[in-house]
Amino acid sequence: MTSTLHNSGFMDQALQEARLAQQRGEVPIGCVVVKEAQVVARAGNRTLELNDPTAHAEILAIRQAGAVLGSQRLDTCDLYVTLEPCTMCAGAISFARIRRLYYGAADEKGGGIEHGARFFSQATCHHAPEVYGGLAERDCQHLLRAFFQQRR
Amino acid sequence: MTSTLHNSGFMDQALQEARLAQQRGEVPIGCVVVKEAQVVARAGNRTLELNDPTAHAEILAIRQAGAVLGSQRLDTCDLYVTLEPCTMCAGAISFARIRRLYYGAADEKGGGIEHGARFFSQATCHHAPEVYGGLAERDCQHLLRAFFQQRR
Repeated sequence: MTSTLHNSGFMDQALQEARLAQQRGEVPIGCVVVKEAQVVARAGNRTLELNDPTAHAEILAIRQAGAVLGSQRLDTCDLYVTLEPCTMCAGAISFARIRRLYYGAADEKGGGIEHGARFFSQATCHHAPEVYGGLAERDCQHLLRAFFQQRR
Repeated sequence: MTSTLHNSGFMDQALQEARLAQQRGEVPIGCVVVKEAQVVARAGNRTLELNDPTAHAEILAIRQAGAVLGSQRLDTCDLYVTLEPCTMCAGAISFARIRRLYYGAADEKGGGIEHGARFFSQATCHHAPEVYGGLAERDCQHLLRAFFQQRR
């Protein structure tokens, strides 16, 4: 159980996707989807590259996982992402029936899990994953802060 | 102003996309994105066909509009959709900076505009469109009800 619950290797891979996003000039957020201890999808933000406001790391990774696994239901999959998902991504995680959500840094300004809409607590949310926040929090925070400081 | 605000022709085109979705075996919801009185993107649900839980009509239409217009910011665009958007789609509409949202039927169980997360009223929502609900409500409701009655 512990290896599935807190395999920091998966968050390291999400961090790697975040760094690759940064190299492309995107906000450094990365995500992996894991099924039975195997990464089945990985992505970083690509909103600028694709002219697509929905191209958050989580959305891209969920779409990829659905295509790879041949199903829109990812109910045996866990999702690792470096930042607290926004409301849009919280919705996607719910529709995908993700089993467990692990995220790194909290996002006071845009998060939809422990901030704002708190979507998983709404009556209109029909599936909520188990949620574990604060995984590799310092590394995840550092990457985002450095990125936004550079931009100022 | 009135022709832009209440051009029922655009909702009729969204309804047409909903009917096409139904013919593909998908939940009959349709959407068009309009810029300067021209439809720039149109889509119906394709979650089953694409094995993609994010493939709601609104998400597909927004992605298409971003690609066509070469920008992830659709701030001069209006979006017409046959059902009250869910929380995921509300997030996407906000990120896309959609100017006006017109929807048909309300969705008590899954809506994210006037139900549940009410995302546009959250402090974590950084752009809210003008919202007009109840456009061609009866036709939009009828299509969905008939679909779900058939499935029972």
